[in-house]
Amino acid sequence: THLAALGALDTAGLHLQGDVTVAATVGEEDGGLGALSTVLRGYRADAALITEPTRLALVTAQGGSLVFRLTVPGRAAHGALRDRGVSALEKFLPLHKELLAMERERNDAMDHPLYAGLSNKMPINVGVVRAGTWASTVPETLVAEGRLGFAPGEEIDEIQALTEARIAAAAARDPWLRNHPPTIEWFGGQFASAEVSADAPICTALGDAHEALAGTPVAIEGVPYGADMRHFIRFGGMPCVMYGAGDGNVCHAPDEFIPIDDLLTAAKTLAILLATWCGVAEAQVR
Amino acid sequence: THLAALGALDTAGLHLQGDVTVAATVGEEDGGLGALSTVLRGYRADAALITEPTRLALVTAQGGSLVFRLTVPGRAAHGALRDRGVSALEKFLPLHKELLAMERERNDAMDHPLYAGLSNKMPINVGVVRAGTWASTVPETLVAEGRLGFAPGEEIDEIQALTEARIAAAAARDPWLRNHPPTIEWFGGQFASAEVSADAPICTALGDAHEALAGTPVAIEGVPYGADMRHFIRFGGMPCVMYGAGDGNVCHAPDEFIPIDDLLTAAKTLAILLATWCGVAEAQVR
Repeated sequence: THLAALGALDTAGLHLQGDVTVAATVGEEDGGLGALSTVLRGYRADAALITEPTRLALVTAQGGSLVFRLTVPGRAAHGALRDRGVSALEKFLPLHKELLAMERERNDAMDHPLYAGLSNKMPINVGVVRAGTWASTVPETLVAEGRLGFAPGEEIDEIQALTEARIAAAAARDPWLRNHPPTIEWFGGQFASAEVSADAPICTALGDAHEALAGTPVAIEGVPYGADMRHFIRFGGMPCVMYGAGDGNVCHAPDEFIPIDDLLTAAKTLAILLATWCGVAEAQVR
Repeated sequence: THLAALGALDTAGLHLQGDVTVAATVGEEDGGLGALSTVLRGYRADAALITEPTRLALVTAQGGSLVFRLTVPGRAAHGALRDRGVSALEKFLPLHKELLAMERERNDAMDHPLYAGLSNKMPINVGVVRAGTWASTVPETLVAEGRLGFAPGEEIDEIQALTEARIAAAAARDPWLRNHPPTIEWFGGQFASAEVSADAPICTALGDAHEALAGTPVAIEGVPYGADMRHFIRFGGMPCVMYGAGDGNVCHAPDEFIPIDDLLTAAKTLAILLATWCGVAEAQVR
């Protein structure tokens, strides 16, 4: 989107009076080492814009997310005598229920206005489950890997402590798990949450550019997913927002797509934004 | 145990007046192709004895068992937008509950006297669960593999039909599963159930041998697991019972073991059984 916008400005003979740095970063899905590296190498700007698929809404707040691995112990036995064993699958069920309850309660308690439109503001997704080795043996171990979302303003260590306390409390209610406690590991990407004020200059400028093109005010939203915003805001000290074509709702799913019309709209909005944000050399405007 | 008994008779100078065939068969755990092959190759006897670990009880009935694979469909989505997806794990939960309910109801309804002492007469063990590919993606598929026990007198095809009907009924109660039905495959070992009358000659003879040695009557039991009995009974037309050292409750589990004393007792009982069943040459008795 950035390159299309810059290309359009160039084709139109417009020369920006400020520097625009486009960073094509890797690793966003698993922690954002590319964006972090960009910041650590010293790249700074008056504002940063990420073209995540926001359905052409201006995103000024992003939730954080953590990836966890829950290991639940059982005890193997012959399937025909399964009462002699302890099924790690069955022992996982109250812990899974606890995660769902935690998700529901936190959603009910969250009152951030930018998240009001979301059905699930801080999703806890159990994405992987692996248990047992053979149909006729009681499964001795279950490993569940999941993704846990949290709100702008919440910090990674407090969410980890809360989750560990919930799992420990659920385990304490079960006679087997009380004596054979499940373990939680935090692995993979750790996404802090981040937010910029909706009246920051980049927000106003992007809203104006969107409205100039679309004729209607831009929607301002928060998103429930972790993204690279936080690296620019928290480690780079730059205001950063997200605005882009495509719908996150079809991402990571079969047949994911971005409508070409939306892509063109996003590129045009960016071109207008860049022209007004940086200014253009008067003499070269056609 | 058989070889120890025959060795003891030989050492004692006793010559049996009948033929004893010892078949060391493979594959008992996964359907018993070794025992079936023994029968299909024409081996026949007046009775067959299997030395499964029965804790020195005479087992005259064995449950059947089937291995199944349940595949539950979901729909992938980004974990942060998980309400847009359908978790195959969450859709598995009502099916798992149905299997547990089926197990409980069938146990409550079963009134076979040889099974009265068992806490779980027809166990349904979900031994393997595999779901999802990544922590932050809603799991699109769950595969559960399990082992399903059934009672003497029940037949494989009726149990398969019952299980399929229960799973279909549970699926019909869920809007997603109604339109995306789970599938059941029957794979691996299929163990028919089998039973011999407790007053069959081999039962009486084994009971007498046990009592001659132990001084107390042998316990007569049914077992909830599939074993090779059925091949000899159903395909070979031979009465077959089980009697052996060791406790099935510690099989397929960490630190499985057989007490040496029990092994010696079982071998002695077999020696007495063989001597009385076959008869011994008078002149050669020391």
